[in-house]
Amino acid sequence: MAHTLAQKILQMHADEEIREAGQIVRCKVDFVLANDITAPLAIKSFRQMGAKDVFDKDKIALVMDHFTPQKDIDSANQVKGTREFARAYGITHYYEGGEAGVEHALLPEQGLVKPADIVIGADSHTCTYGGLGAFATGMGSTDIAGAMALGETWFKVPPTVRVTFNGTLPEYVGGKDLILTTIGKIGVDGALYKALEFDGTAIESLSVEGRLTMANMAIEAGGKAGLFASDDKTLEYCKAHKNPNPVRIGADKGASYERELVFDVNGMEPVVACPHLPENVKPVSEVGELPLNQVVIGSCTNGRISDMREAAAILKGRKVAKDVRCIILPATPTIWKQAMKEGLLEIFMDAGCIVGPATCGPCLGGHMGILADGERSLATTNRNFKGRMGSLQSEVYLSNPAVAAASAVLGVIGSPKAL
Amino acid sequence: MAHTLAQKILQMHADEEIREAGQIVRCKVDFVLANDITAPLAIKSFRQMGAKDVFDKDKIALVMDHFTPQKDIDSANQVKGTREFARAYGITHYYEGGEAGVEHALLPEQGLVKPADIVIGADSHTCTYGGLGAFATGMGSTDIAGAMALGETWFKVPPTVRVTFNGTLPEYVGGKDLILTTIGKIGVDGALYKALEFDGTAIESLSVEGRLTMANMAIEAGGKAGLFASDDKTLEYCKAHKNPNPVRIGADKGASYERELVFDVNGMEPVVACPHLPENVKPVSEVGELPLNQVVIGSCTNGRISDMREAAAILKGRKVAKDVRCIILPATPTIWKQAMKEGLLEIFMDAGCIVGPATCGPCLGGHMGILADGERSLATTNRNFKGRMGSLQSEVYLSNPAVAAASAVLGVIGSPKAL
Repeated sequence: MAHTLAQKILQMHADEEIREAGQIVRCKVDFVLANDITAPLAIKSFRQMGAKDVFDKDKIALVMDHFTPQKDIDSANQVKGTREFARAYGITHYYEGGEAGVEHALLPEQGLVKPADIVIGADSHTCTYGGLGAFATGMGSTDIAGAMALGETWFKVPPTVRVTFNGTLPEYVGGKDLILTTIGKIGVDGALYKALEFDGTAIESLSVEGRLTMANMAIEAGGKAGLFASDDKTLEYCKAHKNPNPVRIGADKGASYERELVFDVNGMEPVVACPHLPENVKPVSEVGELPLNQVVIGSCTNGRISDMREAAAILKGRKVAKDVRCIILPATPTIWKQAMKEGLLEIFMDAGCIVGPATCGPCLGGHMGILADGERSLATTNRNFKGRMGSLQSEVYLSNPAVAAASAVLGVIGSPKAL
Repeated sequence: MAHTLAQKILQMHADEEIREAGQIVRCKVDFVLANDITAPLAIKSFRQMGAKDVFDKDKIALVMDHFTPQKDIDSANQVKGTREFARAYGITHYYEGGEAGVEHALLPEQGLVKPADIVIGADSHTCTYGGLGAFATGMGSTDIAGAMALGETWFKVPPTVRVTFNGTLPEYVGGKDLILTTIGKIGVDGALYKALEFDGTAIESLSVEGRLTMANMAIEAGGKAGLFASDDKTLEYCKAHKNPNPVRIGADKGASYERELVFDVNGMEPVVACPHLPENVKPVSEVGELPLNQVVIGSCTNGRISDMREAAAILKGRKVAKDVRCIILPATPTIWKQAMKEGLLEIFMDAGCIVGPATCGPCLGGHMGILADGERSLATTNRNFKGRMGSLQSEVYLSNPAVAAASAVLGVIGSPKAL
């Protein structure tokens, strides 16, 4: 049969022919990931199942990024236990301290994931690597433990929803707006156990980083994965990031899609996801001028160098509004250094922002920017569930970095065009 | 009577003649301080005592620095309550977010404290301002609440211990080594409810920032205050920091000291305070090559620009040892920006450090670098009490920034000369 991109990658790794969606297949995996929250659970399961060794010490990453720099004794002990496991099994890609960054920004940057790979991670946003044309998905820590030992796992072959974006992206509209628009259309369960496959002329013109942002949030529609064909841009990105021989891969002609959506991006406005679900999407002009206590620019969704540049372009020569704390978290040490070299951090500091280290931090209510009762944040992160960033009486809105930066200056949610 | 420096400043603010140590006097205060941990308590007392207004909205600073960027919901709510109080009473010097820094680095930098002032703060390290020739001391939140309302408080006039450092400071020996040496000599209760007054040729040649470091730790010997005469260096520092008319002040000739200690710094080695008290002081060469998990360079003790320069001089072109997380926390946004402009942050990042925002963070076990069971940290902070930086099964050693930076590279506690 003609395969969608997801099915095609699964077929390349499967022990049998893939004939239909819903089929259960065993697949070799190329890379396995866990972080400081999930690795301790995976390690516990790994030991409980009596595993003697990891399948490949070069194909596992353990990234200490969520509650680091260590926020409390419990998180410090979780890191300690993971470090000891990594040392005991000789795990090559153990990241802590000054080497660590937000996992889903770090792995593509370090060339550890590539087109046509199957990547599984004990983190729901593992789907990010679909931006490079990998089949990447989040799993529970027990499944990850099994894969760490065996180098394989099982999948139910997902049906695919094809989402096409045609047209020319207007100023201040990027990957974040396209994925939020998608989720706004299909809902947070619109792609439950399905693969999303993105294409169209707007996608072709979108940067790889913009595609990583989109794939990152596939899970917010319930998606098993969110995929992009690897094209010249992908190959160029991979070669620039320690991956000399990336493959070109796309769906088979004539592949069968469960559903097809087509959007025209011409004239599109930046959008904002309102509390308390990523599907509550409105054009920024329709949100209303809601006062903000906090703006967060960072995370595995929008903490890359292009996001930093986008925010800096808005903040340059401007000041953050008096009552807003604007927290900038470049997602990896490499991004941090690059942002410093380009003068972006100086722009942020001159604007009155706080520049923090590479950490997931406030995105999941971990630390480094938690909301008090009644506070409101606009964030470039991926989830705005009730209480996600702190108090159950707080609110999180989601946007792209340009809108977030503009809103930090305005003191209310607003568009860069309102400056 | 001839007054020591502490007595002289108290006399300038007192309602009666000071005749002897032990006398109780009421004094006007020049400046009152609280932070995100202590302000909420002070505000509660302020309300309970039925205070109608603050004594002077320009002479109170509320600095949100300990658990910020907000580390959890409780700390976020504490900041929120303080912010609302600051707004309600029109407090001029409310610092939060991108404007905030470690209080005792921030106030001198912003010109809010000056020679001959009485400064009281709901924080034990308020004694820092003695480095500028102010009588500055920490008090409980209830006393601070009273002073916020009345602009005055009572003091028991302290006797003074005079500590003289003569000689030429050797390379890699600074204010931190002199104050640790003092505490090592007299013990953590050696100056209980006494003022420490520092002088001598080594003090004359010490920078104002070095003196601030020394005064900062007067409390670690139990000192009510730690004072330095204001000299040309002090006046120059003040004028460069928004304080155009600082006064020159020193002890009266013939003042009576309870005890006098004299040290010769010639040939002195950098020292390290070993667990679990700041009095457990040894020359760095006698500590032994103890492996480290973490190094922290920052805090109200050693987070100033001269400390950043000292650390960067060691870290330049070198790498932090593999198993060490080296956390650098410039103490204020101004210091952070200056360090960036001078290329120090680039040196830190290239060495593999984590550069964080201006926060007290790990010093008090707050966040941003907490120790797991069995972990060991060397820090430029001020306290190494059991469990201070995390687990009760962890250890904290204290040193100057050069020794801390060198040890981060060595992976064990050691001297810059061992590099």
